[in-house]
Order: sequence, then C-alpha cells, then structure tokens
Amino acid sequence: MLTKPQLKALKDCVAADDLLVDTADCWAYGYDNSRQQACPDAVVFARGAEQLQAVVQFCNHYRVPLIPRGLGTGTTGATVPAEGGLVVSYERMNRIISIVPDDRLVIVEPGVTNQALQTAVAEHGFFWPPDPTSAAYSTIGGNLAYNSAGPRAVKYGTPRENTLGLQAITGAGESIQTGVRTTKGVVGYDLTRLLIGSEGTLALFTQATLKLTPLSEGRRTLRAVYADMSSAAHAVAAIMAQPVIPRSLEFIDGMAIEMIRAYSEASLPEAAGAMLMIEVDGARDCLETAAQTLRRVAATAGCLEVTVARNEAEVKALWATRKALSPALRNVAPKKINEDIVVPVSRMPELIRGLRELSERYGVTIVNFGHAGNGNIHVNMLVDPDDEQQMAAAGPCLDEVFALVLRLDGSLSGEHGIGLVKRDFIAREIAPATLALMRRIKRQFDPNGILNPGKLFPPA
Amino acid sequence: MLTKPQLKALKDCVAADDLLVDTADCWAYGYDNSRQQACPDAVVFARGAEQLQAVVQFCNHYRVPLIPRGLGTGTTGATVPAEGGLVVSYERMNRIISIVPDDRLVIVEPGVTNQALQTAVAEHGFFWPPDPTSAAYSTIGGNLAYNSAGPRAVKYGTPRENTLGLQAITGAGESIQTGVRTTKGVVGYDLTRLLIGSEGTLALFTQATLKLTPLSEGRRTLRAVYADMSSAAHAVAAIMAQPVIPRSLEFIDGMAIEMIRAYSEASLPEAAGAMLMIEVDGARDCLETAAQTLRRVAATAGCLEVTVARNEAEVKALWATRKALSPALRNVAPKKINEDIVVPVSRMPELIRGLRELSERYGVTIVNFGHAGNGNIHVNMLVDPDDEQQMAAAGPCLDEVFALVLRLDGSLSGEHGIGLVKRDFIAREIAPATLALMRRIKRQFDPNGILNPGKLFPPA
Repeated sequence: MLTKPQLKALKDCVAADDLLVDTADCWAYGYDNSRQQACPDAVVFARGAEQLQAVVQFCNHYRVPLIPRGLGTGTTGATVPAEGGLVVSYERMNRIISIVPDDRLVIVEPGVTNQALQTAVAEHGFFWPPDPTSAAYSTIGGNLAYNSAGPRAVKYGTPRENTLGLQAITGAGESIQTGVRTTKGVVGYDLTRLLIGSEGTLALFTQATLKLTPLSEGRRTLRAVYADMSSAAHAVAAIMAQPVIPRSLEFIDGMAIEMIRAYSEASLPEAAGAMLMIEVDGARDCLETAAQTLRRVAATAGCLEVTVARNEAEVKALWATRKALSPALRNVAPKKINEDIVVPVSRMPELIRGLRELSERYGVTIVNFGHAGNGNIHVNMLVDPDDEQQMAAAGPCLDEVFALVLRLDGSLSGEHGIGLVKRDFIAREIAPATLALMRRIKRQFDPNGILNPGKLFPPA
Repeated sequence: MLTKPQLKALKDCVAADDLLVDTADCWAYGYDNSRQQACPDAVVFARGAEQLQAVVQFCNHYRVPLIPRGLGTGTTGATVPAEGGLVVSYERMNRIISIVPDDRLVIVEPGVTNQALQTAVAEHGFFWPPDPTSAAYSTIGGNLAYNSAGPRAVKYGTPRENTLGLQAITGAGESIQTGVRTTKGVVGYDLTRLLIGSEGTLALFTQATLKLTPLSEGRRTLRAVYADMSSAAHAVAAIMAQPVIPRSLEFIDGMAIEMIRAYSEASLPEAAGAMLMIEVDGARDCLETAAQTLRRVAATAGCLEVTVARNEAEVKALWATRKALSPALRNVAPKKINEDIVVPVSRMPELIRGLRELSERYGVTIVNFGHAGNGNIHVNMLVDPDDEQQMAAAGPCLDEVFALVLRLDGSLSGEHGIGLVKRDFIAREIAPATLALMRRIKRQFDPNGILNPGKLFPPA
C-alpha cells in the first residue's frame, strides 16, 4: 500500500490518465501466464523516458518496487508484483518510431507487439526474426526481457542476435544508451546483450533499435513422421549437421500427436510416435532443391514418411496444429507445468528417453514439443490437481527433469527465463562465483534493488 | 620492475619454463600492430585455468598489472604493457579441446589461431564465421577480446553472434563459466557477450565454446567497378536492401585502386573510381541465380562493369588484391593511421564525401576500403613522418574523421576496439552515465584494477 505522501509524490510525476491506484483496476495488471497473481499498489502507463525517469526516482526515494510489464504473456511470474509496488505497463508506449529500410533497422518503443512490428516492417520487405508463439500479444520489450525467440531462431537467432541497441533507464534513474546503429561495433562493453534477458531487473527499456532481415522469396514446409521419439531426435541431429539450415525445425512427441488426433482432423500414420515440422526458406529457384535435401536427410532410421505440403492451406493446417498444442494442453490440464528447457541437439535422444522414464516413474504424463533445431523443448507435465498422488509427485519429478537437463549439458530455460517460479533452481545451473558476480552487476544498475525484486535470483 | 620477493612469489606459481624475466626476452612481448611498445616486467606463458588463477592472485596481492596477449596482431595498443607489469601470453595455450559436429560447436583454448581452428573444423564440414584479415596469426582469444569479425560478418555475424559460452578467470581471481552449449538460453545475465569485446579488462579467457556453421557448397565472387566512390556507396545500400545477403561485400576506394594498379597486374577500367568485391555462397544449384541477382542489383547509376570471376584462380587473385592492401599501404606509409570506423550503410555516401573533403582540407591522403556490407570502413590516413605540415595536420584531421562518423550515427570502431590509442575518444561516443556504469561493472570483475589498466577507458 502506498502512503498518502507517496501517492501525492507519484501523482506529481504521472499524469492522472496514466495512473491506476484503485485495487479493482490494478488487479488486472498483477498476473502473467504463470498463473501467479499479486495486486500492485499502483499501475503507471509508461509514456516516455522522461516520465519513466521520474517514476524510477520516486521508487528509489520511497524504496517502492517497480515491475515493468508488457502484456503479461510471460510464463515465469517475472511481471507479477509479488512484493507489491508499482507495475509499469508499456501498453501505451507502443509506437514504431522509424523504419529505415536502407539500414535494415527499425526503432520502436518497447510496448509495440511483435505482430504489429512484423506487419509494419513486412510492407518494406522485412521481418524481425524473433517470433514467439505469443507474437500476436507479446511486446518487443517482453521479447527482449526474456530473449524470447520462437521457432525461427534455428536459422535467424534470438533477440540477442537481432538487436542493435537500446535506450533504457537504469534502476538508479540514469538514462543510458547502448549499442550502435550498425551491425558491427566494439566500443565499450556490450550492455545491449546484458540488458536482453535481464527480466526487468537492471533497467526499464525506453527504445529498441532492432536489426531487420529481408523476407525470403518463399518457403516449403515438410512434415516428417517417425515410429518413436528417439528416431525423431536422431533425425534432428542429422538435419542440423548438414548445410541446409531450416527456418524452423519443430518437434512433436507421441503424446502430443495423440492430442492432435483428438483435437483436429490431421491425418497421421497409425504408427506415428513422433513428428517433425521442417520449414525451409530462400530464393524461389532454390526452394525445391532445399526441400528435397531436407526430405532426404530427415529420412533416418525409424522414419515412416516425409511429406512436403502442397499448398498454402496445408502449410496453414500444419502450423495451426503446432500452435494449438500449448492452449490445447492447458485445456486438458489447467495445472500443467510448462518448462522450456534446452539441451545440445546431440543429447536430445537421451533427454527424450530420460523424460519417458521420469514420466513412468512418477506417474505424471509428460508431453514434449518445441524448437528441436535449438534443442529447446517445451516439457509439459500434465498434473491433475484432484489427484493427490500426482500433485505430490510433480515437485520431485520437475526437480529430476532439471537435473537430467543439466546432466546433459543443457540449460533450464531457452526463452521463458527464470522469473519467480524458477529462481530457486538458478543456482543449480550457475555456479556461486558467477551468480555472485551477476548480483554485483545488478547493484551497479539498481543500487537500491527497486527493479523487479525477488525475480531471477533466489532470495539472498 | 618486480622486486625480489615479488619475483620469488611469481616463480612459486609459474613453472620456470613458462616464465620470462630477462628484459631482452620480455621485450618481444611488449608490442602490437599499433607500433606502440613497452617492456613488460615479466612474461608468463598461460597453461591453464589453475595456473592463471594463481597468477591473478599474485597480481592482486602485489598490485601488478596483468596484460593478456594473443599473438600481438591488435592495432590499438591494447596488449602493450604501458604501465609495466606482467604480460600473459597465450601462445602455448592453444589446444582445440573438442569438436562436436552434432552440436555444431567446438571448444578451444584461447591461444589457438583462427586459421588453425578453421583448418580443424573444415575437416568436419564447418567453419567459424569470424575471419579477420589477420586470421593466419591472430588468436581466438584476441578475436573475442575485440569482437573482430572480418568480411563474412555481413552474412554470418561477429564473434558475439558465434560464441556460445566462455570460461574465464576474473580480475578478482574467480573462475567463472558463462553461457551455454546450446543456441538458445536465458538463465541469468549474458556475461558471454559482456566479456566479448572487453579487451582483457574484465577477465582472462581460459576456454571458449564456439558455434560452428556448415561450409556452404560453393560460392561466386563478383567484382563491380564504379565511376566514383559515391556510386559504389549507393550500390552497397542497394545490395543490402534486398534478400540475397552476400557472404562478403568489400569496398575499395579510388586511392586504393591506384595502389592496386601500381602493385599488381589486376586489369581495371581506366575510369574506375571505386570497386566492390561481392561474394555469395550457398547451395550449388542456387549460386548462379544468386550471382545474377547481385550482378543486377549492383549495377546502379555510375556502375562501369560487373564481372563474375570465372574460376578459382580469378577468385584468388581478387582476394589477394584486397588482402594485400593493408600491408601495401603500410609499406607506402609506415606511419599510416588505420581506423576502422563504422556507419549505417545508408550514410556511407555521406561518409565517403566527408572523408574526401577532410583529405583535401588537411592535405592528408586518405585511402578507404573495408567491409562495406556492415558499413565498416578501414580509413587509412597516409602521413609522411618527414612532412611537418602533414604530421601537424594528422591529429586534427583524425579528430574530424571521428566527429564525422559520430554525426552520421556511426561508431569509432567496428572490430579493432579502443585499447590505448583511442581511449581518449571513447567519451565522444559513450555518454558519461553509460561510461560510468561500464567503469563500475569493470570493478565488479576486477576490484583492484589489475587487468589491462589504462586500456579502453580514459584515465579517471
């Protein structure tokens, strides 16, 4: 709760139209897709650098937590004001400031949605490669905060490879500018990448200069079906070891296929135990050759069939299937635990085998799909909240999933980040000295610890 | 000079074979390609993390400067022990630890040369995109320290886009591990990119995990000749605004063409005022189409001819010409000032025009060539040391070159870094608050300031 003097001071730096203090109004800004929720003491609609600087100064003065928020599509509770404080919503700071085709860049405010950006730059023949499943609703600021990339990262990289520079207000209230307007540059430390993936714990973004990529002339979409998950995982490694880099390489396991069967009319071979969706793009003349190369390479042992989508309708149907999986799973299991672990591609067969063993041992259904080309698998534990045994097993099972991932030289998160829900696991991946160094770096940006407290790091 | 107790302590942590203390021996480790030189008090040959940790502890205990050094190909004096101290040479820490084709990665010690790495991974069908002109002699550690990329960056990125993780010893003597073994990952802050480009001021690298790219099936090399530099600069912008991304896009100005004429037998049209070397790679079937597209796009106003190299001999001759430029210039003008500024591609015509004006105004010959696709131009000021007037003009002219670059939204360095020779200019590009933040970050890695003191930052 803000005190009266605090409220007065806040009103001095934020226009009445850009401030919510009524609990009923604030409540809607206290959740994300993690199903965590907490009510902020106030909500400020970000409008620009000057206003945000004043808000940060206010928060420092009164030691009020400040939580930046895009549109709440995160899955880790990173934007949930667990310790109260001010949520800064970027929904009104969503302008595309300028598109510079000759320099292949666009300058945006952080609140613009990924989709709005893509639509605007497509008119100039470009796209911005990061494309999380949430693209229609998630903001660029959020994409940057978690380095969220989606399927195209396998060919085009993550936000870290597609951002040239940032403007931001640090937790100390200083306005900083990072990076360059060029694709090379080595003057001073790389603060751009340091801020990307920092989950709102270092600074508030006020502007981002994004690197654009020309739209390719066309693409081909292939569906490869395998007898079992292990065969599909081996095929992924084979595809990634040759020069035709797919634009996306998505993996769907046997459990997910059963769901697709139940929820759509996609026709799949009876014996299908896993499938890959492979998409390749490039110059029109080269697509057929590239598609045939991938068709050949994908046909490893255990492959039942590889088909190339014949028309746009088939392509759309394939992607609809893939994109429907996450919400469909949520309908089946509202308490599903959705992780986005990542392992080296060569370890995927071991990962998949290990996950199956854990599923059997703990009696918890685990459905796996995701960005196989990066080894980035969305592991969904479907837990029935009415089943006490399952609920009790979920924690230990998740613990072992993470242990398995780390044993395979993997990482706890490919693109969702740590936030609130995984902060107690981060020390399993990052050694004490490195973690302590990160905490010290945080203090240089945010000496009073007002920015997104309790996120990313475990309580000291 | 090390005192006797210091020398004794140093000998306790470094094997006799790995230590030089004789001035005559040390002298050879006190220079780089900037023509700066200073004699280190001792040279230690790095052997591994444990030894380096002991050396860092020694340096902290006695407050002795520690300067990491690859093979001395840097151009900014960043490895010159200007304040004395210990040079740590990586020449004996040059193993390729493992190549993992299935995961498209290689793990190396920092002292391996870029060329040795390329040779080793080529056997597995891969390359590491960064390819500075110095590749035959420069080390991976050095490439990482300055984020040096060379011509292929236009398509494949710089070390920051091609490094997965690092192991290092911080200036505080702590062993840290950064990054992941995967192409996605967002757990904690991105210390990998923070260390890349930090010029040895934060930590000593002990191991690097590099992302590999499959060798493409083939390539085509084109030479486009223009009436003047401005036409060529416009062609660069046109090429970069369409989807066929060249593997390299090199720019050579009129002055450089005259040198080529004088020093090689390359036949160029009489009226040639500038040229581009354009290289495209990809699947064999697609090369011809891609080359024809680039040929068409490159033929902007002012284009005199575009030729596609007919065979490997022609390709080699073209590259030999380009790569011979830097040493040739140095023979002509031993005191040449070689900058590697970078501007947005669309500003290149203005840059080239501005440089010509400065050249005329100050009576200093300026030769420009470099990585035009990134807007990264090597600006060579040929100063005759016996010409007093020229020597007096060089400083102010350079100053105006930097002012011009910053006015065009550019950056002082694309891939050489700041080091000693540009440290007084860094504050022209980076604002006080951001620079102060970088200094504070430095202190978290290196509280006693032993790592490469006096580099990157201007004296406080």
